[in-house]
Amino acid sequence: MNKTEMKTAILDAKQTKGLTWDAIAKAVGLSKEFTCSACLGMNSLNQTQAEACAESLGLGPDVAAALQAFPHKTWDQTVPTDPLIYRFYEIVGVYGETIKALIHEEFGDGIMSAIDYSMDIQRQPDPKGDRVVVTLNGKFLPYKSW
Amino acid sequence: MNKTEMKTAILDAKQTKGLTWDAIAKAVGLSKEFTCSACLGMNSLNQTQAEACAESLGLGPDVAAALQAFPHKTWDQTVPTDPLIYRFYEIVGVYGETIKALIHEEFGDGIMSAIDYSMDIQRQPDPKGDRVVVTLNGKFLPYKSW
Amino acid sequence: MNKTEMKTAILDAKQTKGLTWDAIAKAVGLSKEFTCSACLGMNSLNQTQAEACAESLGLGPDVAAALQAFPHKTWDQTVPTDPLIYRFYEIVGVYGETIKALIHEEFGDGIMSAIDYSMDIQRQPDPKGDRVVVTLNGKFLPYKSW
Amino acid sequence: MNKTEMKTAILDAKQTKGLTWDAIAKAVGLSKEFTCSACLGMNSLNQTQAEACAESLGLGPDVAAALQAFPHKTWDQTVPTDPLIYRFYEIVGVYGETIKALIHEEFGDGIMSAIDYSMDIQRQPDPKGDRVVVTLNGKFLPYKSW
Amino acid sequence: MNKTEMKTAILDAKQTKGLTWDAIAKAVGLSKEFTCSACLGMNSLNQTQAEACAESLGLGPDVAAALQAFPHKTWDQTVPTDPLIYRFYEIVGVYGETIKALIHEEFGDGIMSAIDYSMDIQRQPDPKGDRVVVTLNGKFLPYKSW
Amino acid sequence: MNKTEMKTAILDAKQTKGLTWDAIAKAVGLSKEFTCSACLGMNSLNQTQAEACAESLGLGPDVAAALQAFPHKTWDQTVPTDPLIYRFYEIVGVYGETIKALIHEEFGDGIMSAIDYSMDIQRQPDPKGDRVVVTLNGKFLPYKSW
Amino acid sequence: MNKTEMKTAILDAKQTKGLTWDAIAKAVGLSKEFTCSACLGMNSLNQTQAEACAESLGLGPDVAAALQAFPHKTWDQTVPTDPLIYRFYEIVGVYGETIKALIHEEFGDGIMSAIDYSMDIQRQPDPKGDRVVVTLNGKFLPYKSW
Amino acid sequence: MNKTEMKTAILDAKQTKGLTWDAIAKAVGLSKEFTCSACLGMNSLNQTQAEACAESLGLGPDVAAALQAFPHKTWDQTVPTDPLIYRFYEIVGVYGETIKALIHEEFGDGIMSAIDYSMDIQRQPDPKGDRVVVTLNGKFLPYKSW
Amino acid sequence: MNKTEMKTAILDAKQTKGLTWDAIAKAVGLSKEFTCSACLGMNSLNQTQAEACAESLGLGPDVAAALQAFPHKTWDQTVPTDPLIYRFYEIVGVYGETIKALIHEEFGDGIMSAIDYSMDIQRQPDPKGDRVVVTLNGKFLPYKSW
Amino acid sequence: MNKTEMKTAILDAKQTKGLTWDAIAKAVGLSKEFTCSACLGMNSLNQTQAEACAESLGLGPDVAAALQAFPHKTWDQTVPTDPLIYRFYEIVGVYGETIKALIHEEFGDGIMSAIDYSMDIQRQPDPKGDRVVVTLNGKFLPYKSW
Repeated sequence: MNKTEMKTAILDAKQTKGLTWDAIAKAVGLSKEFTCSACLGMNSLNQTQAEACAESLGLGPDVAAALQAFPHKTWDQTVPTDPLIYRFYEIVGVYGETIKALIHEEFGDGIMSAIDYSMDIQRQPDPKGDRVVVTLNGKFLPYKSW
Repeated sequence: MNKTEMKTAILDAKQTKGLTWDAIAKAVGLSKEFTCSACLGMNSLNQTQAEACAESLGLGPDVAAALQAFPHKTWDQTVPTDPLIYRFYEIVGVYGETIKALIHEEFGDGIMSAIDYSMDIQRQPDPKGDRVVVTLNGKFLPYKSW
Repeated sequence: MNKTEMKTAILDAKQTKGLTWDAIAKAVGLSKEFTCSACLGMNSLNQTQAEACAESLGLGPDVAAALQAFPHKTWDQTVPTDPLIYRFYEIVGVYGETIKALIHEEFGDGIMSAIDYSMDIQRQPDPKGDRVVVTLNGKFLPYKSW
Repeated sequence: MNKTEMKTAILDAKQTKGLTWDAIAKAVGLSKEFTCSACLGMNSLNQTQAEACAESLGLGPDVAAALQAFPHKTWDQTVPTDPLIYRFYEIVGVYGETIKALIHEEFGDGIMSAIDYSMDIQRQPDPKGDRVVVTLNGKFLPYKSW
Repeated sequence: MNKTEMKTAILDAKQTKGLTWDAIAKAVGLSKEFTCSACLGMNSLNQTQAEACAESLGLGPDVAAALQAFPHKTWDQTVPTDPLIYRFYEIVGVYGETIKALIHEEFGDGIMSAIDYSMDIQRQPDPKGDRVVVTLNGKFLPYKSW
Repeated sequence: MNKTEMKTAILDAKQTKGLTWDAIAKAVGLSKEFTCSACLGMNSLNQTQAEACAESLGLGPDVAAALQAFPHKTWDQTVPTDPLIYRFYEIVGVYGETIKALIHEEFGDGIMSAIDYSMDIQRQPDPKGDRVVVTLNGKFLPYKSW
Repeated sequence: MNKTEMKTAILDAKQTKGLTWDAIAKAVGLSKEFTCSACLGMNSLNQTQAEACAESLGLGPDVAAALQAFPHKTWDQTVPTDPLIYRFYEIVGVYGETIKALIHEEFGDGIMSAIDYSMDIQRQPDPKGDRVVVTLNGKFLPYKSW
Repeated sequence: MNKTEMKTAILDAKQTKGLTWDAIAKAVGLSKEFTCSACLGMNSLNQTQAEACAESLGLGPDVAAALQAFPHKTWDQTVPTDPLIYRFYEIVGVYGETIKALIHEEFGDGIMSAIDYSMDIQRQPDPKGDRVVVTLNGKFLPYKSW
Repeated sequence: MNKTEMKTAILDAKQTKGLTWDAIAKAVGLSKEFTCSACLGMNSLNQTQAEACAESLGLGPDVAAALQAFPHKTWDQTVPTDPLIYRFYEIVGVYGETIKALIHEEFGDGIMSAIDYSMDIQRQPDPKGDRVVVTLNGKFLPYKSW
Repeated sequence: MNKTEMKTAILDAKQTKGLTWDAIAKAVGLSKEFTCSACLGMNSLNQTQAEACAESLGLGPDVAAALQAFPHKTWDQTVPTDPLIYRFYEIVGVYGETIKALIHEEFGDGIMSAIDYSMDIQRQPDPKGDRVVVTLNGKFLPYKSW
């Protein structure tokens, strides 16, 4: 079973059982963000986590095995078209230089890692309309000369 | 004076005077993130803010005027090449579907606004290497039928 | 049943039963524009609407379920080739800056939402040849500093 | 004087004199939408209109001549990046097939002309936030066999 | 039956029966150019024409129905690779500005319609090698101010 | 003087002297289509033609020399954006396969040359609106085995 | 049987029978270069040649028929990735202007035909390592004015 | 003096002095193909050759120095538009797989070098129209396992 | 069996048998780097190697045959998206000019061959985190004049 | 002075003074690879290093200042055209999956850092032609769940 078949199987089972990502994540013992990304095929779980994940969805060992495979991360659209995802692409375009300037001011030359990285998504209640708060947390990696 | 000339003038003055974005932002009375993005030509300030910004940099009314112009937001590189900015593009590619799934689960169908939006960048001390924490905060906009 | 299969099933049933989008929309209780876009897989209906839609077409609960799924909005052609759709792309290219200038003059810096949005398509009789009138109606979202 | 120089001269004069597109359009005797598009270099005026336009801005016969030249309409960005203009591109992507389906249902096979075309932009007051209403009006052109 | 299946069915039947486009066009009562384009899925026929077309090829009502559907005109290759078709793309590249200059000189600002359009392809005998003569005939559409 | 400077000089002189392409072509002794394309830098003239062309425009020997240089034919836009030129690109997309099928039926496998080629543009009066008639005339070149 | 199926059938039969392109070409009575290109679907054979080709491979009349069809020449990769083919693309990039300059010096303005064309590939023994010699032979086609 | 300025200087001097590539090449002591490519900035000469080249054109030591610099080989157009150069691109597209198949049959797996490479361009007289003969000669480089 | 099917069969067998690339390479008698690339379809093995490879995986003669076929090397993504592979693309972008400058300084004008080439991947223990060491080893090929 | 002007100044001074990258690097106290990349504008030096670098080249404090600026790393060509640099791009295309498979086998899921990274370029004498050895050395960064 490859990652694409795994993803379809998981999304079908999740809908049938009426589970939330939060519930699956609790069964796995990880955050809802990482668990969801692994179920969508963009990260991998260790054996214990993968079996807990498959079990929570009522799925078998082929899904558990597929969850443990190291993913080949690909996306087809250089510029995403889905409006929700595009807005994040737009943020990178509009604020990319600002982020670079402020990280350089605070840390010196280097980058924020997208590997040693975690992410958190929360609802922020607001009388003018609730807000989405996405927190990106990555290790600063300095350039070093040699 | 157009936005490109304004940006060069501001970056030169900032370096000469040894100012930080934080200091300029305090003079303006806004966050360092918004102030920096306006100085880089991606947002606009009102008259009071623009004059305070120019004054803090020792720059004249042409810069203050340019800061008030509504920007035409463009970026040349569909896929950014600078490693720091690319990492954020990569996050959109790898985690875009995850973000979409979790926002949909929490809020229903809709998007996180990139217009009614703010952003915060902080250093998080960590014995294994300090971390960059970028918080994206946008209003949830639901799709409505008509 | 995914959105693509749903779309094919709906278009087949619509042709077989000789229904118009207007008739389906009346059964659903929404505009013909929104109803059509949901049937083509670019928007979602709530349960009542989806069941009314499927029923009007003589289709089953799998179609009704697919109509309720939140869509992933994708299009393959960066520049559309179909002459009818291309003309709208051309309008954005030719008149995009004009629209931006006039909205900025009237509202200040900000955008017209494509999410809090509705659309209406009408025939305007004209002795020199009837005309198509497409009305785009979106909430103005101002940029705010923080 | 070419169209690019003309556009810069007009935008500078407009800002210096504090004119609105509406005021310039009234001097020209055309809609604000067409007048603005001609001033931005995407349409041409006849001699009387061009001279009235230049005069209203305090500009000379070289601008009036440039306003009369037939434009070569070009845009650099296949996918526009400015958020305001992108939203209209997104509308074409998301609703293009819907527009096609509804025009075909009402008129038969053919297109809406982008040449025999006019456009109107208005503010619609709304207690939940004012709305932008953009009306596109083009002649229906049927495909004919031969 | 969709347009792609229709096209394959027609090309197979045409080859099997040894028919020419000219012969099919005579049965349909239209030009060989329009008939061929409809059989390739880029135009549609009315009911009488479609039935005559299908009958001349010995094909059934599913083909006749598919011929009547309004086409979604798509092409995959932005720059065509087939040498015959590329030469026409090259002509647009090399002579596009020339065509624009001469149409503007003769007609004023506007375009040649590709919708209110017909086309004719003939052999011109020539002792140095016969020539292909392709005649493009489209209505002139003037830009109008409003 | 390179081709770009030559083109600007010719277009300026043509406008100042109020000449038409037809008048320049008569002075040169060639068709208006070829003359125009040479003046726009996409073809070359021989010495006699080039001198007659420059003289008719009141321009000097540097223009005459530039007209004789063999051009490097380039165009920037893979898909042209100008509406007039785009319509011809659209014709290649929509009717390219039709043209190929009919040339193959008439001539066998081969192409229509874009080098051994001429072109003619005429106005066709029509009570419903005058029409543009563009005639493309190229030698048929058969593929040969070896 | 289309060209893609034909190509697969021929390559399979060639491998099974252990034939070389040279041997197939001798059976067909053409060069190995043209025969190979026809078997790969990029050229067509006449009936006698096609039947000889199919027979030499032990294949049936469907292959012989497919070999006679006029090909639609397409390639997917604008820039080829296979290292052997890329080197030829690189030669066009590095030496294209050189080839143009030298052909223009020798022949005047015009092109080398890729239609009235033949090609020859030979091994040139060399003590420092044998060499590949590819000879491209095309008719010179001059540009003519009209 | 960079390669671009060098190229312009050489082409100007060549035209002024009425020299041919062949004559310059004889002065340099190399083939006309390599000499031309070096003068166009795509190869380099050694000191003796560069000085002979500059002298033959009546140019100074800055040109001789620029001719010795190692070039950075770039081309802007992924798909060339000039018809003469495009035909060679087309040959790579149409015959690339054929070339690969025949080289593999003759030599085994490997490539023809574009570095250890020479090229020759000749006129072949032909009563039906003279022909261009371009000979590409590159060392075969086998893939080796390790 | 084509290379794609071969690759799937090998990866499945490798996982089932719990083999490492190192173990397969030892059975084949080649490096793990070359063996892995051949199993992924990017290089070919000779008969002895291919049979040893298939045998070590418990696979049959169809796999052994496919391993011997000369590959057509293709990749779909001009810019790779997988983070591990992208980092190498980034290294080429950031350090490409540096590599060129240093090779030119050491060797003169020429390239490092990617055909007469080998590669080695090792773990370098490091108390601050182990390191990956990738060694690229290619023959220097000088440009030669002719 | 920006990075582009700095690079030109350094390359000119280096050529005038006849310095090697190795000599400059020794003056700076860093490797020739890092020093060269900083001089080409792709990395930055600290104050001491920058002043030593400028001094070794006989350049002033503006160059020393520019060397200390944090670079914005950009490259124009998605696929590089220079043959030397392209070969490295080709290596990523051909061997990218192999590198990924072997790193995953040795280290688990993660990447090789291009930030915590060094590079070494050496000549390897070889009687069959000297070889270029490029060693890439980057810290392994594991993916972690959260």
